[in-house]
Amino acid sequence: MLDCFFNPQSVALVGASLNTEKLSSVIYESLRARFSGALYLVNPAHEELGGIRCYPSINAIKERVDLAVFALSAEHIPQMIHDSAGLFTGAIVVSGGFKEAGPAGAELEAELREYARSSGIRIIGPNCLGIFDTVTGLDTFFIPPIRMERPRSGGLSILSQSGSFAVTVMDELAAEGVGVARVISYGNKADVNESDCLDFLAADEATSAVVLYIESVEEGERFVNAASRCVLNKPVAALKVGHSAPAAAAARSHTGAMAGRYEIYSAAFKKAGVIELQGYEDFLLACKVLGDKTDISHGRRVMIITDGGGIGVSIADSCVDLGLEVPPLHESIARKLHGSLPPVCAISNPMDLTGSVTDRDFGEAMLKTMDGESYDIAIVASLWGPPGLTDNLPALIADKKKYLKKPVIICTPGGTYTRKRRELFRVLGLPVFFTPESAARAVSFIAEGGKDRWS
Amino acid sequence: MLDCFFNPQSVALVGASLNTEKLSSVIYESLRARFSGALYLVNPAHEELGGIRCYPSINAIKERVDLAVFALSAEHIPQMIHDSAGLFTGAIVVSGGFKEAGPAGAELEAELREYARSSGIRIIGPNCLGIFDTVTGLDTFFIPPIRMERPRSGGLSILSQSGSFAVTVMDELAAEGVGVARVISYGNKADVNESDCLDFLAADEATSAVVLYIESVEEGERFVNAASRCVLNKPVAALKVGHSAPAAAAARSHTGAMAGRYEIYSAAFKKAGVIELQGYEDFLLACKVLGDKTDISHGRRVMIITDGGGIGVSIADSCVDLGLEVPPLHESIARKLHGSLPPVCAISNPMDLTGSVTDRDFGEAMLKTMDGESYDIAIVASLWGPPGLTDNLPALIADKKKYLKKPVIICTPGGTYTRKRRELFRVLGLPVFFTPESAARAVSFIAEGGKDRWS
Repeated sequence: MLDCFFNPQSVALVGASLNTEKLSSVIYESLRARFSGALYLVNPAHEELGGIRCYPSINAIKERVDLAVFALSAEHIPQMIHDSAGLFTGAIVVSGGFKEAGPAGAELEAELREYARSSGIRIIGPNCLGIFDTVTGLDTFFIPPIRMERPRSGGLSILSQSGSFAVTVMDELAAEGVGVARVISYGNKADVNESDCLDFLAADEATSAVVLYIESVEEGERFVNAASRCVLNKPVAALKVGHSAPAAAAARSHTGAMAGRYEIYSAAFKKAGVIELQGYEDFLLACKVLGDKTDISHGRRVMIITDGGGIGVSIADSCVDLGLEVPPLHESIARKLHGSLPPVCAISNPMDLTGSVTDRDFGEAMLKTMDGESYDIAIVASLWGPPGLTDNLPALIADKKKYLKKPVIICTPGGTYTRKRRELFRVLGLPVFFTPESAARAVSFIAEGGKDRWS
Repeated sequence: MLDCFFNPQSVALVGASLNTEKLSSVIYESLRARFSGALYLVNPAHEELGGIRCYPSINAIKERVDLAVFALSAEHIPQMIHDSAGLFTGAIVVSGGFKEAGPAGAELEAELREYARSSGIRIIGPNCLGIFDTVTGLDTFFIPPIRMERPRSGGLSILSQSGSFAVTVMDELAAEGVGVARVISYGNKADVNESDCLDFLAADEATSAVVLYIESVEEGERFVNAASRCVLNKPVAALKVGHSAPAAAAARSHTGAMAGRYEIYSAAFKKAGVIELQGYEDFLLACKVLGDKTDISHGRRVMIITDGGGIGVSIADSCVDLGLEVPPLHESIARKLHGSLPPVCAISNPMDLTGSVTDRDFGEAMLKTMDGESYDIAIVASLWGPPGLTDNLPALIADKKKYLKKPVIICTPGGTYTRKRRELFRVLGLPVFFTPESAARAVSFIAEGGKDRWS
């Protein structure tokens, strides 16, 4: 149904310009650089732009156009859509100045919706950034690459009502090395909404997980159904902002959304099996842990292995606070470990391998605790102060994980030396978190029975 | 009372070695490089080390020694302290193998304590990293600088029962540019404990704020008194770990501490006016916001100014969750702003200056909302996507803050481009946070009436 957006063979950029003060100049550069289909430019003020022919109107193109991207003043757009009815299948309207801008803008938006419905085209936006898609190369995000890095290709898809939120998150994910499939900023959703997108992403082979930023959902039942279907195929996590009164009022002026009571959203997420996120930090964590295709666990019993006592204690506190279990070591496991670890180690859960730790100790601890039915997920927290740890540690942990076939979450808080080591874990596909709380939180997202998911 | 630790004129390193496999080699390098007082080395196996004379025992030094640092096997230490009674005033015992190592270690520790008491010397440790002090240059942290960066000089002092926790936090603070005065890792606290240190830091001119990591406090009333006195002079924040059962058990094996019921600690913090921290992330946030000498506010009414609607909404949610107030704009303020900001802006609290924002808009919004009695603290959240923002923004905000004389907290989530801009705020002394939640949390630490402090 949304193929015009996610598999367009031809795109028309309406309002095309090389003037770097115009949003469309960034879109022009992106489409030229990475979109592999046919690209048509529309602007009556030019005959060509950067060596590409420029048409006075969509009607003048005379070729099939799957998707028209509108990046010009709001007041012109409804009429243009009306005048070129039947000439294209989908439209992304990035321009602001609609419902979010007051009564006159709301009227314009109603017109836009009316024309779209009567001519059978689908619209994403207005007041949005549109689509960033590593599968097709489509990129209508009008922020220049220097100010917003584009993430690499990956399996995570993001749906966001807020454009600036999507931009900020993408920029963070690019810096953290997390890959994405499709990012959709749908703004005022005059037509296409989160449920339409969920329907598409549920069946999308390029998408292995979905994370949503929501200010409001108007069609509640449809959303629950769409999300439920999507959850059957891949994990879905959602952040609903605006649970406080001032935030709800702000969201209303931001995308014209009626936020509604938070409890209703929370219940809907639960019903659909959607992982409920509590804020920006959760959103990033979910992107990381789900984007890294970390296995979803069938249990919630966590084993914590660390070389820093205080960090282990902090992780245990966080896990318990989140409704995860940190069961004590079974006598038989403890016995095995006493035989193979130095006597200075605290053989317990959390396990403290202490400052005398070596790479091998981490491996031994993982194998002897996780090989069996006692634990579902391991959090391995390596502090890099101990001189016995080498840069081979990440590969050794990845190796044990492969053998154990259970989720392993890495936690490595610290400064410059540690931050460089995070990359070693990352390239091996191990999800890396920087604080005890974020590691525990990430585990709660992938653990059945974690507080947020099923309580 | 603790002058031997915080103003030593002479230090003896007992167990000195150049062998990089020994902890003492790192301490030797640090003391040589940065300690300005007299340095004596003690090790009967050598006549000199690195060109410095080496004594067979403390007794052989024949000069006044303020502080003896013991970095050798646990079993030798009590006897050595006994044999050199009266020859030095304070001792730092970094070695492990005492109470935390089982019954034999506990006996050794009892002996250590006994000898210290009978000879009138004070002891920090054992099983600790001792002191990192930018005032005196003393540094007994035995982690090599490549693995743990030393923070710059500043006003923050840290007390930590866990050595690895202190190391990790210091490493993070160094990477974030936060300065410290004194960091004290006191481990098993055979003698000197958190209350002794608080007594010292209360009167310490180099210390402008204190943050504590606590696994257990034995002398509860003394702690409340010491903390209360300290709070009269400077802000004090504390993290008590081990509130969950598995964490409490681990803390016990880690420093031999009895964790006790969490509620008791929480009540004690409240009574003393200590800011209560909830985990590792809080600990870091408190170090940053208090270390930057951010003013403590006399109210808790927060004004949120941003150029990203979704981020503003998220900050408002976080503030309200933490018991802060986000009051709507007074009619008269809104009128003034409508006259001076572009019509696209959402004139409310949170205020969204939108993607059309310029530096000037941030300045106008700050001045017209914060100049007066309506708000106590501003959170200025700048997303760096909008092309109208320049690198002059941080200086402009610092300027307005100076005029307004109210706390201003910066929130700038994002990737590579944004992360470089954080430095611009930092060098101007503006505290910078990376997520809506952390900015709100930091505000709650400096706002009277914030949930954690006074509720």
